[in-house]
Amino acid sequence: MTVEKGLADIVAAQTAISDIDGKLGKLWYVGYSIDDLAQHSTFEEVVFLLQNRRLPTQGELDDLTEKMVNDREAAEFLQDLMPTLAKQTSPMSMLRTSVSAASAYDPDGWDQSPEANYRKAIRLISVMPTLIASYDRHRQGLEPVEPNPKLPHAANFLYMLSGEEPSQEAARAFDTQFILYADHTMNASTFTARVVASTLSDMHSAVTAAIAALKGPLHGGANELAMRMILDIAEVDRAERYVKDLFARGEKIMGFGHRVYRRVDDPRATILRLITREVGEHLGELRWYEIAETVEKVVFQEKGLRPNVDFYAGVLLYYLGLEIDLFTPMFAAARASGWTAHIREQYADNRIIRPDSEYIGPRDQTYVPIEERDQEVAS
Amino acid sequence: MTVEKGLADIVAAQTAISDIDGKLGKLWYVGYSIDDLAQHSTFEEVVFLLQNRRLPTQGELDDLTEKMVNDREAAEFLQDLMPTLAKQTSPMSMLRTSVSAASAYDPDGWDQSPEANYRKAIRLISVMPTLIASYDRHRQGLEPVEPNPKLPHAANFLYMLSGEEPSQEAARAFDTQFILYADHTMNASTFTARVVASTLSDMHSAVTAAIAALKGPLHGGANELAMRMILDIAEVDRAERYVKDLFARGEKIMGFGHRVYRRVDDPRATILRLITREVGEHLGELRWYEIAETVEKVVFQEKGLRPNVDFYAGVLLYYLGLEIDLFTPMFAAARASGWTAHIREQYADNRIIRPDSEYIGPRDQTYVPIEERDQEVAS
Repeated sequence: MTVEKGLADIVAAQTAISDIDGKLGKLWYVGYSIDDLAQHSTFEEVVFLLQNRRLPTQGELDDLTEKMVNDREAAEFLQDLMPTLAKQTSPMSMLRTSVSAASAYDPDGWDQSPEANYRKAIRLISVMPTLIASYDRHRQGLEPVEPNPKLPHAANFLYMLSGEEPSQEAARAFDTQFILYADHTMNASTFTARVVASTLSDMHSAVTAAIAALKGPLHGGANELAMRMILDIAEVDRAERYVKDLFARGEKIMGFGHRVYRRVDDPRATILRLITREVGEHLGELRWYEIAETVEKVVFQEKGLRPNVDFYAGVLLYYLGLEIDLFTPMFAAARASGWTAHIREQYADNRIIRPDSEYIGPRDQTYVPIEERDQEVAS
Repeated sequence: MTVEKGLADIVAAQTAISDIDGKLGKLWYVGYSIDDLAQHSTFEEVVFLLQNRRLPTQGELDDLTEKMVNDREAAEFLQDLMPTLAKQTSPMSMLRTSVSAASAYDPDGWDQSPEANYRKAIRLISVMPTLIASYDRHRQGLEPVEPNPKLPHAANFLYMLSGEEPSQEAARAFDTQFILYADHTMNASTFTARVVASTLSDMHSAVTAAIAALKGPLHGGANELAMRMILDIAEVDRAERYVKDLFARGEKIMGFGHRVYRRVDDPRATILRLITREVGEHLGELRWYEIAETVEKVVFQEKGLRPNVDFYAGVLLYYLGLEIDLFTPMFAAARASGWTAHIREQYADNRIIRPDSEYIGPRDQTYVPIEERDQEVAS
C-alpha cells in the first residue's frame, strides 16, 4: 500500500471539459485551444462551451446571454446581509458565506434534475460578480451599483465596481481574463467541488466548498501576492536587485512555476503578458508591466522558472482598478464556470469519492480510567 | 494511466487519528477501541483524544470542558441571522452558512498558528449544537434556549432543543452517539476537509466544505432515511412484508452495508443496537426498536447485509426527541471533532492534494466564427 500524498499523478476522474499538455504548454477547453478562445471568443460563449461541451449557435448564445443578465441580481436577503459582511469579513469568506446562503433563494430549490442544475450553475456564475462588487462598494461606504443589462458579463462587473462604464479595451481585457481563469482540469478547488458533488450534495454546497479551497494561499492567492510584490518593488530599476535579494534569502517567488507546466510557458501567461502590456500602454502607465517583465527575466536567469497565469493576471487586474484582495474572488467568479461544469459532469456519472488512509498511530491501547492515569506520562 | 474512479483503495493520507479493520469489524480512535470508549469515556474526553492523540489527565479534561462550555454561545450576528435561516433554509444549509459566517467572529481571526487552530477547532465543536438548536427553536416559533453551563456537551444539546434537562439515560445515550459519530478515517467529508486544508485555507473553510459534503444523501443522510422507513412501516408485524416488497421492487434499503465493513457488523451498530433498546425500554415505547430489529433480521436473510452506524442511530435519535431532519446536522456536530483533528493533522505535514484527470472529450477542434457555424450541426 503506497501512500500517494497529494494524489499527484493519480487519475481521480475522467473529464470532457478541459485538457492540458504540460510538455507542449497547451490548454484546451473541450478541444478548443485557449489561444483561439482568448482571441475570438467571449466569456459568455465559453460558459456555453464548458456547460454544453460545444460552441453555441447565435440563437443559443443570445438566449444564454439573456439568462445571465436576468440572473445578475442578488436575492434581497443577500443584499441585506452584505453591509455586515463588508464590515466583518474578508472577501473570500464573504463569497463563501453568501454563495452558501444563496442556496435558500434559488428558485429551483432542492430540485436535483440535470435541467435544474444547469439553471443553478448559470445563476451562480451570473450572481457572483454582483456579490463581490456589492461587498466592495459597501466597505467603501458607497451604494452598490445596479447591474447594467446592456453590458456583457465582464464589463458589467467592472461597471458595478466603479460605477462607470469601462473602456472597450478594459472590457475586452477583463473578458479575456475571465476566459483564461474559466477552467484548468483537476485543480484543488475543482477536485473539492467534485468530491462534494460525489456525495450527491447540491450545486451550492459544491461551489461553496470550491470557494473554501480556492481561498487557500497555495491555490488562489498567488495573483494577489505577485502584485503586492510588484508594488513593493515600485521602480523598474529596483526589480533585478529585489528578486536577487529574495532568492539570496531563500524565499519563494509568487506567480512562477506550475506543477503542470514544467519547462514551458503557461499558455495563459503568454496571452496575459501581451494584454497587460496593451492595457498599460492604453492607460499611459507602463511601469507595473515593465517591473513584471524585468522580474520575469531575472527569475528565468536565476532559476529557470517561467511565469504562470497568476503573475500577469495580478498586474492586469490592478490596471483594471480591482482592489488587490478582490483578485482571488474574481478568480472564483470566473472559475465558477468550470466548477459548475465539473459538478454537472460528476453528477452525470457518479461514484462517491472516498480514498483510503494509512494508519500510523499507536495500536491496541488499553483504556485506563482517568483517576488511574499517570499524570507524568499523560502530560 | 488507470482511472481510480472514487479513489477506492488509493491511500490519500497517513493519519494517527483513527483506524478501521474492516475484516474484523473493529474501529479505534488513536488505538483505543470504540467499545472501550463508548463504555467508559465521554464525548469531551474523545474530543481531547482526537485533538491531542492521547487521553487527558483529570486536570486537562476539566480545562477542556470549561473551554467548551465557554465557547457554546453563538456570535450575536449568527443569532440575528438565525430567524431568517430558520424560515428559509434546510438544516444542513443553515449549518454550512452559519459555520462559514462564524469565521468572521472568531477571536483568533486569520491566525493560522497551530495554537490558534486548536482554539478554533474547540470553538467550532462547541458552538455547532447551539446553532442547530437555535434554528430548531426559531422554526417552531419558540425562543432559543440559552446553553446550560452545568450540563455536559451532549446533554446540553438536548436541553437547548427541548428546554428541559434530559434524563441521565437519555444524556448518556446521546453522549455515546456523539462518541460513535466522532471519526471514521477517510470518509468523503473528512477527505473534503483535508483537501481544502491542503491549500492552507482556514479551519472554518475546511469545516464548511466538510458540512457541504456530509449533506449529500450518499454520505450523511442515511440515518434520516432509515428512520423515515421505520416510521413508514409503523407496526412490527408489517416489517417483513415491507422489506420484501422493497427488494421485490429492486429498491435499496438505507442504513445497511458499508464499503469498509463488508461481511462483519459495523462495531458502532452493535453498540447502538443495545443502547437503542435500553432507551426504548426506558421510554416504555419499544415499537420502533422492534421494527428495526425485524428489518435487520429480514435484510440479513434476504441479502446478507448487516446494519451500519446509521440504522440504529436513526431510531435512537428519534427516541431522544430530535426532529428527523436534525439527524444529519447532529452527525455533523459530532464529526466536527474528527474533521478538525484531521484538518490540524493535514496542516502539520502538508502537501496540496491535486490529483490528475483523464481527458476523454474531443481533440483539436477548429474554432469557427459564430456566424459561420452550421445551425444544424451545432444544435
